[in-house]
Amino acid sequence: MKPIQVGLLGIGTVGSGTFKVLTRNQAEIRRRAGRGIEIAMVADLDTVRARAIVGEGVEVVADARAVIANPAIDIVIELIGGYTIAKTLVMEAIAAGKHVVTANKALLAVHGSEIFAAAHAKGVMVAFEAAVAGGIPIIKALREGLTANRIEWIAGIINGTTNFILSEMRDKGLDFGVVLKEAQRLGYAEADPTFDIEGVDAGHKVTIMSAIAFGVPVQFDKAHVEGITKLQAADIRYAEQLGYRIKLLGITKRRDDAGGIELRVHPTLVPAKRLIANVEGAMNAVVVQGDAVGTTLYYGKGAGAEPTASAVVADLVDITRLHTADPDHRVPHLAFQPDELHDTPILPIAQVITSFYLRLQVADQTGVLSRITTILAEHDISIDAVLQRPGAEGAGQVAAEGEKPTDLIILTHETVEGRMREALAKMQALPTVLAPIVNIRKEELN
Amino acid sequence: MKPIQVGLLGIGTVGSGTFKVLTRNQAEIRRRAGRGIEIAMVADLDTVRARAIVGEGVEVVADARAVIANPAIDIVIELIGGYTIAKTLVMEAIAAGKHVVTANKALLAVHGSEIFAAAHAKGVMVAFEAAVAGGIPIIKALREGLTANRIEWIAGIINGTTNFILSEMRDKGLDFGVVLKEAQRLGYAEADPTFDIEGVDAGHKVTIMSAIAFGVPVQFDKAHVEGITKLQAADIRYAEQLGYRIKLLGITKRRDDAGGIELRVHPTLVPAKRLIANVEGAMNAVVVQGDAVGTTLYYGKGAGAEPTASAVVADLVDITRLHTADPDHRVPHLAFQPDELHDTPILPIAQVITSFYLRLQVADQTGVLSRITTILAEHDISIDAVLQRPGAEGAGQVAAEGEKPTDLIILTHETVEGRMREALAKMQALPTVLAPIVNIRKEELN
Repeated sequence: MKPIQVGLLGIGTVGSGTFKVLTRNQAEIRRRAGRGIEIAMVADLDTVRARAIVGEGVEVVADARAVIANPAIDIVIELIGGYTIAKTLVMEAIAAGKHVVTANKALLAVHGSEIFAAAHAKGVMVAFEAAVAGGIPIIKALREGLTANRIEWIAGIINGTTNFILSEMRDKGLDFGVVLKEAQRLGYAEADPTFDIEGVDAGHKVTIMSAIAFGVPVQFDKAHVEGITKLQAADIRYAEQLGYRIKLLGITKRRDDAGGIELRVHPTLVPAKRLIANVEGAMNAVVVQGDAVGTTLYYGKGAGAEPTASAVVADLVDITRLHTADPDHRVPHLAFQPDELHDTPILPIAQVITSFYLRLQVADQTGVLSRITTILAEHDISIDAVLQRPGAEGAGQVAAEGEKPTDLIILTHETVEGRMREALAKMQALPTVLAPIVNIRKEELN
Repeated sequence: MKPIQVGLLGIGTVGSGTFKVLTRNQAEIRRRAGRGIEIAMVADLDTVRARAIVGEGVEVVADARAVIANPAIDIVIELIGGYTIAKTLVMEAIAAGKHVVTANKALLAVHGSEIFAAAHAKGVMVAFEAAVAGGIPIIKALREGLTANRIEWIAGIINGTTNFILSEMRDKGLDFGVVLKEAQRLGYAEADPTFDIEGVDAGHKVTIMSAIAFGVPVQFDKAHVEGITKLQAADIRYAEQLGYRIKLLGITKRRDDAGGIELRVHPTLVPAKRLIANVEGAMNAVVVQGDAVGTTLYYGKGAGAEPTASAVVADLVDITRLHTADPDHRVPHLAFQPDELHDTPILPIAQVITSFYLRLQVADQTGVLSRITTILAEHDISIDAVLQRPGAEGAGQVAAEGEKPTDLIILTHETVEGRMREALAKMQALPTVLAPIVNIRKEELN
């Protein structure tokens, strides 16, 4: 049988990785898929570079629409990125009856519902394994492997740049800014790293996983997203002393008690003995808790040319298998049948339940701890551990004359976040609290 | 649409777990699968217990053949275990045109080729996610998620009993026999633990993964299998001091240089910093190295009622989706199309390449180390690290009078195993070597 014909939109890092993997492993992939898979056409504004990558056998064009318009093309791979052009092209490809493979998490987290609805109406597949956690087959695990389960929660290190930065901060005791510069020098962070370090990229990915886990539409605008830019070396060190590591986690959790779903990205203390706390450098890992299976974890490279290509090609093989099949035989885009999505609300951050790490720079006077614990008790927040250390750590303001500043670290048990915000405001107002209170969420993940 | 009708052969731990998960999560599973899945008939010799589990709505019979003969049954789940009756029933179910789901690794590792050939000829599916690593969707990851890759090697903790025993030996510094008794008391080891502690169960599972990874028939009889019964607390301690942990690993490796495949189970030193070295207790984890994706790891519960049921039900959903589809649209049983399996040989253990941990109980005399290192050098085996400790550790014979026994621990670099066997025989023959040399393979897994 003639190889299935693929058109590639955008041949940057992942695109050239995909071309390379398909070419190098074509015999093995055909032995598995039962049919060859061939990139027949590439669209890229830089046609010279594109030609240099793919050689003579492949048609190279500058205009992506020429690929979509080509009736010989069965599958379109979108690797342009961004929301605007990518969205237009994906919608046009669907309208033209092409199956689509994309690694574009931003696009799907924001416009996924519209795109999947269009694909469903047209009877084509939109596959996106590469959009979350690169080469780790986490979408397949969630949609198919764990399909027996009510998913309870997912927590993932799903941004390699920030995990690299956090690993370096811990290893070398450095603050965020210093390590970011090093990461940029090494190519682990982009020149404009905003999407990574502010948690937006992780937010896109956890939004997609949340939809698949709980059968709700993708709705990135409801996610609570915090990055790692304010993290200080002191807190990483104190967390370590208390048996925790700080990771930027994307978390989504079923909250039947509140009739909603938590969807959030933020730095998180995780017990050092958990496997995910030991995921270092640019690696990714996702923990999934299901009611039947218990805890499972998936680990691997979350970015890079060939790891991401591994996921793109897996999608190509899935489509090659199923593109002539009755659409009922396919796995639904968001794991649940399109008419079975629920509108379970995403809870506002004030309703989220977590425990907390607090660091207060306080004057070393009698009664300080008592005033603080009283405020916590008044808000029904119970204390798990307290650590007191001579201050001058961190970036607090200089203590008033005659006062010796002390770092007071408190780990709390679980509480509703809104209540903690109220308590924090009252503690912050105490004259003996000398600097803004550092507060970082903590998850036991068990 | 009427729910797909399932017949269950054997309702022990996993069978009742499967019934429970399907019942509890039926709404959620239907939302995903697009169709209900119903256990309509159960066969078990103990019909009273079976009836107590499934209640009144399900037909209970003592004769498994009544399930197979029932034309209303679409899928048969085989949870009887063992090679004999299970094989007969699976072959009869296939002949009757039923799809089969099984958790029976022993059956597939030994008779898989025959079973898959029969299923292929009849156009039915035999699904077996539950046969390897319980609830971890590793079969799906290997067959579909990583389909773009040339798999280079797989190394897995795929037997929870032995990993529990090894974790306890390390934590408490106890020898094998003591911990085994504790494991039996706690229900982590069976009354007859032979299949687990001798590595046979892990051998079955790695045999299945090997076939899927490399596109070769299942051939358990070619696997090299060693268990953990001879492991001593002293070696676990020395390994720790050298930065390693000892795990029972199932390993399979592509060896293009030798035109074959390694397939083996044995205790293995693994660097303590690797994620898999930190998998504790009865948990399972599988590391897969692919040429495009690099290293990925899959972690979760490898046994137990509901974790295993999670995999069984995932197979039921896959079959529900695909049972009316053209067989070409299905994933081949062993990942590769049936006519694309190769007969790449499994290499004999003498051709395997690993590094080694050696412990020699030697007389504390000048020149001992020199004689030993000379033998290693003569066999082209280079040394990575040496540790010398006062003896009396371990189970060596009492040293002759006037000699103080010393433990000499050597880590080697990689060597062909046959060469190491020759060197070991020569070292063992030295009069200054006072006890049988302990030798444990070591893998860096990077």
